[in-house]
Amino acid sequence: MSTYVNPGSAHEGAHGTVYRDVTPEQEAVEQRLVDDVVKSFDACQDPRLKEVMVSLVKHLHAFIRDVRLTEEEWGTAIEFLTKAGHITDDVRQEFILLSDTLGASMQTINVNNVAYKGATEATVFGPFFVEDSPEIEVGGDMAFGAPGEPCWVEGTVTDTDGNPLAGARIEVWEADEDGLYDVQYDAGKRAARAHLFSEPDGSYRFWGLTPTPYPIPDDGPVGKMLNAVGRSPLRASHLHFMVSHEGTRTLVTHIFPEGDPIGEKDSVFGVKASLIKSFEQQPVGTPTPDGRPLDSSWSRVRFDIVLAPAGV
Amino acid sequence: MSTYVNPGSAHEGAHGTVYRDVTPEQEAVEQRLVDDVVKSFDACQDPRLKEVMVSLVKHLHAFIRDVRLTEEEWGTAIEFLTKAGHITDDVRQEFILLSDTLGASMQTINVNNVAYKGATEATVFGPFFVEDSPEIEVGGDMAFGAPGEPCWVEGTVTDTDGNPLAGARIEVWEADEDGLYDVQYDAGKRAARAHLFSEPDGSYRFWGLTPTPYPIPDDGPVGKMLNAVGRSPLRASHLHFMVSHEGTRTLVTHIFPEGDPIGEKDSVFGVKASLIKSFEQQPVGTPTPDGRPLDSSWSRVRFDIVLAPAGV
Repeated sequence: MSTYVNPGSAHEGAHGTVYRDVTPEQEAVEQRLVDDVVKSFDACQDPRLKEVMVSLVKHLHAFIRDVRLTEEEWGTAIEFLTKAGHITDDVRQEFILLSDTLGASMQTINVNNVAYKGATEATVFGPFFVEDSPEIEVGGDMAFGAPGEPCWVEGTVTDTDGNPLAGARIEVWEADEDGLYDVQYDAGKRAARAHLFSEPDGSYRFWGLTPTPYPIPDDGPVGKMLNAVGRSPLRASHLHFMVSHEGTRTLVTHIFPEGDPIGEKDSVFGVKASLIKSFEQQPVGTPTPDGRPLDSSWSRVRFDIVLAPAGV
Repeated sequence: MSTYVNPGSAHEGAHGTVYRDVTPEQEAVEQRLVDDVVKSFDACQDPRLKEVMVSLVKHLHAFIRDVRLTEEEWGTAIEFLTKAGHITDDVRQEFILLSDTLGASMQTINVNNVAYKGATEATVFGPFFVEDSPEIEVGGDMAFGAPGEPCWVEGTVTDTDGNPLAGARIEVWEADEDGLYDVQYDAGKRAARAHLFSEPDGSYRFWGLTPTPYPIPDDGPVGKMLNAVGRSPLRASHLHFMVSHEGTRTLVTHIFPEGDPIGEKDSVFGVKASLIKSFEQQPVGTPTPDGRPLDSSWSRVRFDIVLAPAGV
């Protein structure tokens, strides 16, 4: 079906900052509509739902009025959302990508993970977590054949009082050196993904892959948007962690290699200074911490994880 | 794939108006992110696109921070958009319905069709217009077999100086008395839909159907949202018009029967007082204006259309 475009609108060619003045009468018309829409939620029995919808409506209308959105632009937004919906399936989530690239995911994380003493900072979850990661022993290898430079990861899991947390569940996942997660090859593939449990003394260690940058999937409308605004789809290199333990706030975060040129230009605004770690390059032949024989270079990184108490 | 939910978030159960105070440090973290996202558009070469994206980001983040959106709610929003995308196809546009029910369509119309002298007011386009309506003569019948009470529609098309506009193209379309548009039966069906051209003296007339209320398609996520907030999916009864003429601003509007109980509770906020018209009921046997023999009641309405000049 057709989307109507008013070719006569004075705003259609109003690129830049020149807008027709909004008269008091016009403002009143626009404000009256906002009030009517807000009022339409009066019968909502769920106070939180009502609050969220009312705020959404106020901000949405403020945006439309602020930019004097044209009917053509409205139509473009409808088409964008439609395309995003049509490319989304079990292994591709274009709306999460949209939320990520507008910083909405990171802001939601911020709002729900306020700083608490020395607790490790959180960052975006991303669209590639799956529930059924393979379990590995402490010191095991999460690669399962995924290509990439081996990386020894070690550290401790403690609470904010410095007490070791034994048996913390540590989920880790990452893209391989070709820039792809296992599920991007095949929904059932599991590689560069695992979970393990911290030792009685709170320590943990495992072999992963040195993280490398990769683009978010950019063959859809979000990629088109990034291109149109001159932004790169590249993510800063990272290794995902999700760490949980009874009595603590579950941590969803990444660690980022120091020196990654992408860094602050991360397409999903996920980088935080405290999460940038030194991944020390080890030349070929350097003895490994567990005696694993390697005929390639490898790297090592230390990541001590501090979990905040539940409910903060 | 899974959507992570932080079960430890203090906001998860924070229904109502009790929120943890936002410290200055936390505000700074949140504001810094907004600034970073805004800055990411610096390289955008299209000033209008940059302006729209920056405003969108500011308002989106303001909403998230305003309501202290929980991670579970963020997940619900992602699922909602996904379902909307999956139910949308060539004859069903859930994103337009979402825009309509949040009043965003009506506000966009308001912003682009400012009041100009006595020009007829505009209202929402809706999702049921199609390009290839059948043409009828002045005085012809647009029903093409669609069920409903016959309705004689007449009036004039003039500019805002009162000059008649000859040959104005008048598109009309409406739901039948079963509450469905032609395309909802079959994408190729054309009924209760037509176009005609005004006479040299600017007058027009045709047979339509007396409008009756109908629900917007509510078997999708938008319908679920309306139900959750205690709102009805019913549209006030209406007859759609799109009227165009060289040198004028194209008018997209509806007329609404006076006395319709739904009126102001229109699910898409489309009703404007100036567009409420008196549809005068004519008992069975009342002679028709053109001598058409009818064995049912019928109604008649006058709608004088005033088009603003192009570019206002």
